[in-house]
Amino acid sequence: MYHINREAVEAEIVREPGAKQATHRKLIDTKHGADRFVLTEFEIEPGGSTPPHHHDWEHEIYVLKGSMTLVTPGEETSLRVTEGDVVFIPRNEPHGFVTSHQQRCRFIVVAPAERPPVRSVFLSSDPYEYTKSAEYQEALGGSHADE
Amino acid sequence: MYHINREAVEAEIVREPGAKQATHRKLIDTKHGADRFVLTEFEIEPGGSTPPHHHDWEHEIYVLKGSMTLVTPGEETSLRVTEGDVVFIPRNEPHGFVTSHQQRCRFIVVAPAERPPVRSVFLSSDPYEYTKSAEYQEALGGSHADE
Repeated sequence: MYHINREAVEAEIVREPGAKQATHRKLIDTKHGADRFVLTEFEIEPGGSTPPHHHDWEHEIYVLKGSMTLVTPGEETSLRVTEGDVVFIPRNEPHGFVTSHQQRCRFIVVAPAERPPVRSVFLSSDPYEYTKSAEYQEALGGSHADE
Repeated sequence: MYHINREAVEAEIVREPGAKQATHRKLIDTKHGADRFVLTEFEIEPGGSTPPHHHDWEHEIYVLKGSMTLVTPGEETSLRVTEGDVVFIPRNEPHGFVTSHQQRCRFIVVAPAERPPVRSVFLSSDPYEYTKSAEYQEALGGSHADE
């Protein structure tokens, strides 16, 4: 059995093309024995995003705190999600997450451990951006403040 | 894409042998398209439990609110878990959850969607117990109060 508190897990910068002010903590991963699905906590700070992309595996999302907009290219509408919301994103469905300058969001993403041998397709060719804020320094220190 | 808030999902009584004051909400299930892993939120009220059992599939747990004791028959110690804790329970490892009369706990459990054709092995032959409290009536009404 593997047990840890989220604060003891390092917050890593999301280094995907076009990502902004996003970190994640790999809470339960293959190295802990999870050979079928893995559990990751994401945090997007104000004015941040993980840009739209798609891939051949699904996501299951639970919003822990705050709010954000779930962007779904190809669909007419975007979706505001908030604490206690859950979202199932089927395989190959493009999706991205955006926070306004007034929003921040912490959420869980569950994904398969063994992903098919294809890469994510990112719809942005921008480099990722991350300004090392006070929040980030705290996160690195393992004492990420509750907002 | 499937989207819902936890409060809109019915809280069902856990009807496993020996369960006490436990409910769950099947937030993301096979009927929503989740064909590899499913996400369920459990709530154990004060003085409650899901009794020790084991099965041929793993659990990934994230504690949302409150605290409880994770009981692991065969091991010397029990584990107190609280908000922000995560636990990976490997296949076939006996486990149960208990709250004192001062505790309640809300947590997420992720489990495989396609379970092997074996049943859970429960170490209790007691019937389940559930007293329909005010909290439960609220839960059924879809407006489960935050404690």
